[in-house]
Amino acid sequence: MTVRFGVLGAGRIGQVHAKAITTVPGAALVAVADAIEAAAQKLSDAYGCDIRSIDDIRTADDIDAVIICTPTDTHADLIEDFVRAGKAVFCEKPVDLDVARARQVIDTVKAENGTLMVGFQRRFDPDFTALKAAIDDGRIGDVEMVTLTSRDPGAPPPAYIQSSGGIFRDMTIHDFDVARWLLGEEVETVMAQASVLTDPEIEKLGDYDSVNVILRTASGKQCTITNTRRATYGYDQRIEVHGSKGSVSAMNHREANIELANGDGYTKPPLLNFFMSRYTAAYANEIAAFVDAVENGRPTPTTGLDGLRALELADAALQSAKTGQAVTLA
Amino acid sequence: MTVRFGVLGAGRIGQVHAKAITTVPGAALVAVADAIEAAAQKLSDAYGCDIRSIDDIRTADDIDAVIICTPTDTHADLIEDFVRAGKAVFCEKPVDLDVARARQVIDTVKAENGTLMVGFQRRFDPDFTALKAAIDDGRIGDVEMVTLTSRDPGAPPPAYIQSSGGIFRDMTIHDFDVARWLLGEEVETVMAQASVLTDPEIEKLGDYDSVNVILRTASGKQCTITNTRRATYGYDQRIEVHGSKGSVSAMNHREANIELANGDGYTKPPLLNFFMSRYTAAYANEIAAFVDAVENGRPTPTTGLDGLRALELADAALQSAKTGQAVTLA
Amino acid sequence: MTVRFGVLGAGRIGQVHAKAITTVPGAALVAVADAIEAAAQKLSDAYGCDIRSIDDIRTADDIDAVIICTPTDTHADLIEDFVRAGKAVFCEKPVDLDVARARQVIDTVKAENGTLMVGFQRRFDPDFTALKAAIDDGRIGDVEMVTLTSRDPGAPPPAYIQSSGGIFRDMTIHDFDVARWLLGEEVETVMAQASVLTDPEIEKLGDYDSVNVILRTASGKQCTITNTRRATYGYDQRIEVHGSKGSVSAMNHREANIELANGDGYTKPPLLNFFMSRYTAAYANEIAAFVDAVENGRPTPTTGLDGLRALELADAALQSAKTGQAVTLA
Amino acid sequence: MTVRFGVLGAGRIGQVHAKAITTVPGAALVAVADAIEAAAQKLSDAYGCDIRSIDDIRTADDIDAVIICTPTDTHADLIEDFVRAGKAVFCEKPVDLDVARARQVIDTVKAENGTLMVGFQRRFDPDFTALKAAIDDGRIGDVEMVTLTSRDPGAPPPAYIQSSGGIFRDMTIHDFDVARWLLGEEVETVMAQASVLTDPEIEKLGDYDSVNVILRTASGKQCTITNTRRATYGYDQRIEVHGSKGSVSAMNHREANIELANGDGYTKPPLLNFFMSRYTAAYANEIAAFVDAVENGRPTPTTGLDGLRALELADAALQSAKTGQAVTLA
Repeated sequence: MTVRFGVLGAGRIGQVHAKAITTVPGAALVAVADAIEAAAQKLSDAYGCDIRSIDDIRTADDIDAVIICTPTDTHADLIEDFVRAGKAVFCEKPVDLDVARARQVIDTVKAENGTLMVGFQRRFDPDFTALKAAIDDGRIGDVEMVTLTSRDPGAPPPAYIQSSGGIFRDMTIHDFDVARWLLGEEVETVMAQASVLTDPEIEKLGDYDSVNVILRTASGKQCTITNTRRATYGYDQRIEVHGSKGSVSAMNHREANIELANGDGYTKPPLLNFFMSRYTAAYANEIAAFVDAVENGRPTPTTGLDGLRALELADAALQSAKTGQAVTLA
Repeated sequence: MTVRFGVLGAGRIGQVHAKAITTVPGAALVAVADAIEAAAQKLSDAYGCDIRSIDDIRTADDIDAVIICTPTDTHADLIEDFVRAGKAVFCEKPVDLDVARARQVIDTVKAENGTLMVGFQRRFDPDFTALKAAIDDGRIGDVEMVTLTSRDPGAPPPAYIQSSGGIFRDMTIHDFDVARWLLGEEVETVMAQASVLTDPEIEKLGDYDSVNVILRTASGKQCTITNTRRATYGYDQRIEVHGSKGSVSAMNHREANIELANGDGYTKPPLLNFFMSRYTAAYANEIAAFVDAVENGRPTPTTGLDGLRALELADAALQSAKTGQAVTLA
Repeated sequence: MTVRFGVLGAGRIGQVHAKAITTVPGAALVAVADAIEAAAQKLSDAYGCDIRSIDDIRTADDIDAVIICTPTDTHADLIEDFVRAGKAVFCEKPVDLDVARARQVIDTVKAENGTLMVGFQRRFDPDFTALKAAIDDGRIGDVEMVTLTSRDPGAPPPAYIQSSGGIFRDMTIHDFDVARWLLGEEVETVMAQASVLTDPEIEKLGDYDSVNVILRTASGKQCTITNTRRATYGYDQRIEVHGSKGSVSAMNHREANIELANGDGYTKPPLLNFFMSRYTAAYANEIAAFVDAVENGRPTPTTGLDGLRALELADAALQSAKTGQAVTLA
Repeated sequence: MTVRFGVLGAGRIGQVHAKAITTVPGAALVAVADAIEAAAQKLSDAYGCDIRSIDDIRTADDIDAVIICTPTDTHADLIEDFVRAGKAVFCEKPVDLDVARARQVIDTVKAENGTLMVGFQRRFDPDFTALKAAIDDGRIGDVEMVTLTSRDPGAPPPAYIQSSGGIFRDMTIHDFDVARWLLGEEVETVMAQASVLTDPEIEKLGDYDSVNVILRTASGKQCTITNTRRATYGYDQRIEVHGSKGSVSAMNHREANIELANGDGYTKPPLLNFFMSRYTAAYANEIAAFVDAVENGRPTPTTGLDGLRALELADAALQSAKTGQAVTLA
């Protein structure tokens, strides 16, 4: 059996998912929709899929599932519409910037007995799954302290920042999900600091570019997250988990695995530039997991609730950064 | 335009090439031939291609090019037959174990104005091409000393060893090609030592499992090659080039880029197991380069002559190992 | 000229300093004092120095300087006594667990025009000074985010914890000093989380074993500190400084610089076990810096004020961990 | 008991040994002799030892042992003279450039029941002893292939090359000793290639600057050695031993254990510059081993015979490089 896909939104992340679909056995890219015709055409040319309207995709007989890659403020409605139309839905994070609305969507999906997977691709990265397997195999004992380092090579455009909900909701949200995944317990308390250090324009937009967060679970496990919007050396994505019997780390990926030596020292190339190249395998594995869930009627490995929890942590972190107080989650 | 491929031989390396074809834009896998029906069926099932006889592929209108992955002793005849039939030919090394016959084949290809590319996939590995680019960009000055380390995880089956021509011709031959590529000058003198250290059966077959070679060019540049048929830690593939202004190295690839720490120390996973996983990108890039040559009428980046030269070095190394004398090439 | 030393306290850290003195040109170990005769004898045997009472050392003509390695609650009085006696004083951190008393001591030293250096040996570690030099040379641009990882191999004995003032004052205090040194600005705000994860006995003593701290300066620079009392893989001491133009890191030191490879992977030895072996060079360089200050009448590179500032940060972190609120320093 | 030392020759290596003596418990530097007064004075000033003539040291009652660091052509006579005078002798390699004369010296030492240790400091390097211990503990199974990489940062002065016996006898000789130590069997066959690539002046002196050697034992174990007189990135000293169950490697040492990251990549500092800084610990451990042998009447860990064997390998390598034939040792 093949799961036949429509991709809604042909921007950067839409392209990433379209490409991933074409590399996954059992997945077929049937149609793409985008308000900007040129964007849709580009995907159509690259992969030979149809260009259709969102409505046509929703009602199509030859579409089993959609990937929602449209702007954030359309996610909630689209999820509800497509679930009601009987399509399996994969939606990029977040479900909605408003926690109450996100809860509503989750309820709708449940009421409709629908399928919703929220995109947290890091859980499907081969290195990170190997790291998680080492933890689950008991190789570091009980998890005690998680350290997440995520640095983007550069800030997104101002328009994106204005609608993204800010750094905690568009960037740290991935770390919040990884933290939940690795801690193995829900977070109880959130502390955060946030500054603008790279570009005063970001301050004008009411956002931050440099943040640190401490998460803490009921049993006292902790996680620190460090984020910045600018790293000159590439897309820095590291995980370190310290446990009672040892620790396990996932290292960065480089452009090439070579080293040059001379009088200035020993130099390895910069890191892979950004998520499109760093997480190529993760995006494909993520789609494969979604296909597996759809085909076999299994629960999706990440859910609307995961999206909601990560968003709640983002809201809490923002509040803590603004008030200087630890925020306790319900 | 698409280059339509037939794959001759559906064994291990045939499977590798078939898969590579399916990932290269502008390449299509049309048919496979193999004396063992199950092997051909497996490829057909995986990629939806026809099963045909070698003869049918040679005379087919819908086939532009073939990949020859049959046993070594069939290479020479098949190359000649397919070139005469107007097909572009990609042949796994070696052209023939007999140098004179290999020369004959090269002459035939030339007379027929045919296209022949011999498979030395390492030249297309992304790390190795980055290393070569660093050299070509003058970042290490003049090349002086090349160090090649190639260790297989385990020996091939006895039947393979019996027909492969031995370790110098089936394994070191790749290093000989890399040496020529990196030295940038033809090799003049070859010295070698060879032992059986891993398995006495190999000695009975008249072969070796542990060899070291020193190559030297007319201008005095040198290259050492170290090979063994058995490495417990995976498929060890390293290059180091020392030049007048610095050096550049290509490192191994691991199963995952993680590290576990405990009282026993810091442990990274073993290396990727063998060429099928280590050189996945190289095989795809190699086919892409062949497709580019076929489509655009350009010379192939590796030729029958490259195959011949590597074979001559293998013969010289064997002679040196047996006689204890340096062998000078014509 | 030679600076003639008396060492007060022949316990673990006293031994470290005594050994350091014997390796520094221009420093001589003349006498040791310790209430436990066997401890003093051990040092005397090892380095051929006298055993004397603290009083005798204070009044001795052949002693220019003392290293105070006695229990924390004696530091303040001893500093004042020896400064008044005209001796140059090097005191292990902290000056006193009570900030007000520490301020008093600093005032006394100033009034007496005395010499006081407080022991923060990390500033003298060769790797860390190379890292600091890279920052000062502008190689990473403006410092934005500092990440300090310090993990001890095991907890100190309960008696030590009871009198040390707890993890923030006996362990994190070194990180607070490093943070101040690297941030290049005073810290304005402190946030901290603290748990007991390794041993319930530590909770009974009213202390923590696992803490994370976020520091923030007036201009928004940030520093995270992660500490634990138990790491199975040795004494983990890492620094990473991210700046506007790049980042610089200092890596851990191992027992030996070797790597073993087999089917389980590639394994490097554990880290050096603890501060005595990890900071051998730092302790010697620290004494050399003190000797230089004493001989040439220069200010000491670390002062009583540095000790005080680090202690204030420790107090603030403890308060934040207890209240869940960011603590702002005066 | 203390072993009281005289150092003969206060040049570069004499200074290294003098310093090492001052750091070894149970060793005392009493006197130095050098034809160049300023050189002797420098050592005397640094360590407070006497300046004496070689004759005075030989007949002195307060000297137990000597370190011979004079020019190579004086070694043989000095060893014999001092052994006859009842002094324990530590001599820098080689005993003599003439193998027959070296044998004579060894016979004299034996006849006099004297103590002679020849300086091969690498055997005492902490990393290399850890590597050797891993082999001896069976962690890599049977040794099969040893790979030694030794690159000097720059060539010695012409005058040194003229009297040193050439690269195989002054530089590779250390690798020959390490090879014997690690192979655990005597070498039977030697093959070598040698070129001049860095400086034509070296060719005029009849020497080489770039050499590769393959050694082979009776049981077929092999060792490759690669040497060059010029490496821009520092003093490159690596060992890799491949065995039936795994491999073990010793890595290089850097000026500092830090890493800088920016748009050009990740850069670690160059290697330690040369043997004086790289082998500081090895030289001290070597003297400590000699002191232990002298004090406790034990055999020295390296002997005149080790010096002889390494020299024989150097002679064989030179012959092989000149003739292009493998040289078999008696």
